[in-house]
Amino acid sequence: MIRVLIAEDQHVIRSALVALLSLEDDLEVVAETGTGADVVSKALVFTPDIAVLDIDMPEVDGLTAAAELAVKLPACRALMLTGNGKPGHLRRALAAKVGGFVLKTAPPDELIAAIRKVAAGERVLDPSLAVTAWDLADDPLTPREKDVLRLAADGAEATDIAKELHLSAGTVRNNLTAIVAKLNARGRTDAVRIAREAGWI
Amino acid sequence: MIRVLIAEDQHVIRSALVALLSLEDDLEVVAETGTGADVVSKALVFTPDIAVLDIDMPEVDGLTAAAELAVKLPACRALMLTGNGKPGHLRRALAAKVGGFVLKTAPPDELIAAIRKVAAGERVLDPSLAVTAWDLADDPLTPREKDVLRLAADGAEATDIAKELHLSAGTVRNNLTAIVAKLNARGRTDAVRIAREAGWI
Repeated sequence: MIRVLIAEDQHVIRSALVALLSLEDDLEVVAETGTGADVVSKALVFTPDIAVLDIDMPEVDGLTAAAELAVKLPACRALMLTGNGKPGHLRRALAAKVGGFVLKTAPPDELIAAIRKVAAGERVLDPSLAVTAWDLADDPLTPREKDVLRLAADGAEATDIAKELHLSAGTVRNNLTAIVAKLNARGRTDAVRIAREAGWI
Repeated sequence: MIRVLIAEDQHVIRSALVALLSLEDDLEVVAETGTGADVVSKALVFTPDIAVLDIDMPEVDGLTAAAELAVKLPACRALMLTGNGKPGHLRRALAAKVGGFVLKTAPPDELIAAIRKVAAGERVLDPSLAVTAWDLADDPLTPREKDVLRLAADGAEATDIAKELHLSAGTVRNNLTAIVAKLNARGRTDAVRIAREAGWI
């Protein structure tokens, strides 16, 4: 028996998911919630094997909940179930070590198959996100360059970024020049746009 | 009209591909070859918009040809058409900046759609390779660590690796320790196996 927790803020959809999964002999929905804020506490009580998590939820989003879950209850694997596959969401899902990422547009059979696979330790990614995943894999930026670009994206000047990252202002300026060149960008703003669209920052 | 070059060593398959593509009003096969060694020279003569390349070919493989093509004739985009999607092949395809990667198991319509998309500047990845691409994106190794691990995989000792990469032996040993920890490996041999299977080296 695979024990399932469901987190989805839209009540009708959550109930429909519970009904759908309950039709399967090997799946048991042991907990449900409408916010990411409850995921870890409910998981600690009901010990699901897998948490099926929506991303856009009030208070705490599903990706934040997945990252917390990976730390607090690593035995429970996360499967993101979301309306869209933004590159940034896929990047955060990777970082949170989720077991799967399936779109709500997928046929129900695929969701159920994905739950079984992720519960068995496999990784599942919605086939329609193949190109998005490839773009993520193509990330040319170093971790340092990502940090610099994220701060630049928030509007910080080179001297502020340098202070924040304990670097010299010259190093930060060199990083920014390298980033613009690597991304074939017209300038910093364009580099931020390119990196955001590709999900690299 | 989209001008197509086809490189495929198995003659029957190559002829079948030419026949298939020639049925489309907007595709014209302008050149064909049975080895990767001829791809660039034929492309320079016949100026295709897109090169459809098999990977396993005699003399020069399709990925090497794609990498050369990207340097010598960047206007011609490459679409890999292969029997299997090994992670290492997908990694090399990424590095060669190919426009697409489609499996021979795909329906003909998908191949034709992929040719049109890649010729239009889009990127195409066979949906069945979504998880492989995700694994690639999850690569935890730095470029330095990859260099060290590749040399270790060839059987080099830390002192040899240090000489080759102009590093100190201590640095190389630290890199190897970090790699084993990052990959959760039992030792160097296990780290090489994990990184190879995931396509990271």
